[in-house]
Amino acid sequence: MTTRPILLLTDFGTADPYVAAMKGVLVAGAPETPIFDLSHDVAFGDVEGASFLLAAAAPYWPAGTIFVAVVDPGVGSARRILAVRCDEQIFLAPDNGLLERLFDGGEPRAVERPDLYLPGPGATFHGRDRFAPVAAWLAGGGAFASLGPTITDPVRGKAPPPQRSAGGEIEGRVAHVDRFGNLVTDVPADWLPAQPCELRVGAHRTSRRAAHYTAMPAGEPAMVAGSLGTIEVSLRGESLARAWGVGRGAEVRIAPV
Amino acid sequence: MTTRPILLLTDFGTADPYVAAMKGVLVAGAPETPIFDLSHDVAFGDVEGASFLLAAAAPYWPAGTIFVAVVDPGVGSARRILAVRCDEQIFLAPDNGLLERLFDGGEPRAVERPDLYLPGPGATFHGRDRFAPVAAWLAGGGAFASLGPTITDPVRGKAPPPQRSAGGEIEGRVAHVDRFGNLVTDVPADWLPAQPCELRVGAHRTSRRAAHYTAMPAGEPAMVAGSLGTIEVSLRGESLARAWGVGRGAEVRIAPV
Amino acid sequence: MTTRPILLLTDFGTADPYVAAMKGVLVAGAPETPIFDLSHDVAFGDVEGASFLLAAAAPYWPAGTIFVAVVDPGVGSARRILAVRCDEQIFLAPDNGLLERLFDGGEPRAVERPDLYLPGPGATFHGRDRFAPVAAWLAGGGAFASLGPTITDPVRGKAPPPQRSAGGEIEGRVAHVDRFGNLVTDVPADWLPAQPCELRVGAHRTSRRAAHYTAMPAGEPAMVAGSLGTIEVSLRGESLARAWGVGRGAEVRIAPV
Repeated sequence: MTTRPILLLTDFGTADPYVAAMKGVLVAGAPETPIFDLSHDVAFGDVEGASFLLAAAAPYWPAGTIFVAVVDPGVGSARRILAVRCDEQIFLAPDNGLLERLFDGGEPRAVERPDLYLPGPGATFHGRDRFAPVAAWLAGGGAFASLGPTITDPVRGKAPPPQRSAGGEIEGRVAHVDRFGNLVTDVPADWLPAQPCELRVGAHRTSRRAAHYTAMPAGEPAMVAGSLGTIEVSLRGESLARAWGVGRGAEVRIAPV
Repeated sequence: MTTRPILLLTDFGTADPYVAAMKGVLVAGAPETPIFDLSHDVAFGDVEGASFLLAAAAPYWPAGTIFVAVVDPGVGSARRILAVRCDEQIFLAPDNGLLERLFDGGEPRAVERPDLYLPGPGATFHGRDRFAPVAAWLAGGGAFASLGPTITDPVRGKAPPPQRSAGGEIEGRVAHVDRFGNLVTDVPADWLPAQPCELRVGAHRTSRRAAHYTAMPAGEPAMVAGSLGTIEVSLRGESLARAWGVGRGAEVRIAPV
Repeated sequence: MTTRPILLLTDFGTADPYVAAMKGVLVAGAPETPIFDLSHDVAFGDVEGASFLLAAAAPYWPAGTIFVAVVDPGVGSARRILAVRCDEQIFLAPDNGLLERLFDGGEPRAVERPDLYLPGPGATFHGRDRFAPVAAWLAGGGAFASLGPTITDPVRGKAPPPQRSAGGEIEGRVAHVDRFGNLVTDVPADWLPAQPCELRVGAHRTSRRAAHYTAMPAGEPAMVAGSLGTIEVSLRGESLARAWGVGRGAEVRIAPV
């Protein structure tokens, strides 16, 4: 059997013992499995932000990878744990919308394996007590179909998908602001028309395009075909998010000029 | 011989070359050994915080794990390096109280192996020059008993253990404030009496209990049986530490009402 | 063939999907290769800071290690990607001065391997699309000499090397301020004369020396032979950088008294 890497995504930060406790359970249960961090810097309970990170990183990981995403404000309540298999990768997350982007390609199951769970202490740390032992069991060769029943009613996220009209008007939003202050939109880069167009976010606008950051004149925001396949708006060497005062969720409109 | 994972805990942060230099020494000395981070975000010289993290994470790691904890304001001075074996795990740390929670179960030794140490440069980085080569040597099969002599006078920490009186009064403290602002106390969760009781921290109080966070009414702090086996006090979706203005070390009193 | 560890150094931070995407490409291309983080906390575009970290950590890693340093404000432009082999280690970085400290020992090559590159999307993420597949190919046994042609005109950094005069006067600078606020200079520790001397940074000065931090009187800055082989100036238990208001790049003068 080939080794299946495990990738962790949480809002636990790295100053608490929580990530290390999860990894201990993984190492104890699947000693040969390589374990990686996607990120632990998701903001507290930011399901939508975690969903974005997962969708951005997963395509670059090989078939067989197990993603464990624990951004879980509802931990301990009756909310289900979901498992989705998509493109031969497996995703585990709370049933809170985090995996929504994967439902079309995958078959969600509700994880119901109390035989695998750790007894606690407490009911507030399913990352350690449920997600980690289930992931270790999968890494050791456990069958996806044995995790629990398929379900048809997973919780959906609230973000509307980007839209484009017959007249060439596009409406999307800022899906992510990265460390460099780039505005990463959810608008596919190949939606951008060949003819001139203007992008607007609130009162700010640009019609400039560039192939990469150094091709932008200093101080002039521009649209770039971003590394995640969507349109980015950027300011060379500076944070456009700060310059424009724009954050995630802001509406983005693109129209021919 | 089975592989022994190594887990690192420091106050070095991740923006300096120090953790990477330690890992280089480990990889050079024990190439097959899996290396993990417990945390590098311990505050500068915060021995007590490091001790808490170690005690919280270690129980979830398998027998054989080697923990290397370098929070070491006395580096270079005559302070000893301690090694403790406890539950078939090995712990290395400066003799400054960091390992105190482990002395009852373990047999502390003073590490005296100049044959293993690196020559420097400088006398200020024992993490790289002493701890890492000793840990690599242990990971490669070195015998614990050969590290140095057993000692009977390790430095003790200053934190008093929690107390309970015959009348059911409990006195403890806030042992940790986590990223979510939960007040993690040192009071074992099973000390909490079945009958109603009130918890007080300074001028703040609550008699509410909840099984998990979503079972708390918004805005109402409550006691929870925490994931580390102790009582936590939490505020749903918010930081109670901020709301109450309470930090680590604050006295916690619980009494029947 | 022995395993070659890969060490990553970027200014990507850990809250974005960028590091995880790079690691996915590495794991997909070289599944058995151990991957480590040198740091992802380099400030945005801080080539000089990255260069310092690399030079500080590399000597502790074994022969065969592959270092991938992506601090790359010119990504997407015509700037080259360099590869240097030095002390049997391989270094990959943009041609922007990051590898300058290694040119004397090594033979720089321009990486020209479009057959290995990923197609994108976008032209702004060479860490994922070029550096990672090239590093995975090297880890899998690819020959250094096949990366591309040797070059003689790599971009040089701007930092002047430290100087000493026949009269014993030394001039250097603060090369790094670490988490503890120590001023790490670029002046080799063995340049420090045996006789008394005074170190000056701006209006601040000290002639005190100490073997390690606890040997310093509280509140009295002192020179220490630092762990990276250079002179450090430190303040016991406090940040000297904050106390003196000094940052990286500040000029450091040492003269006999």
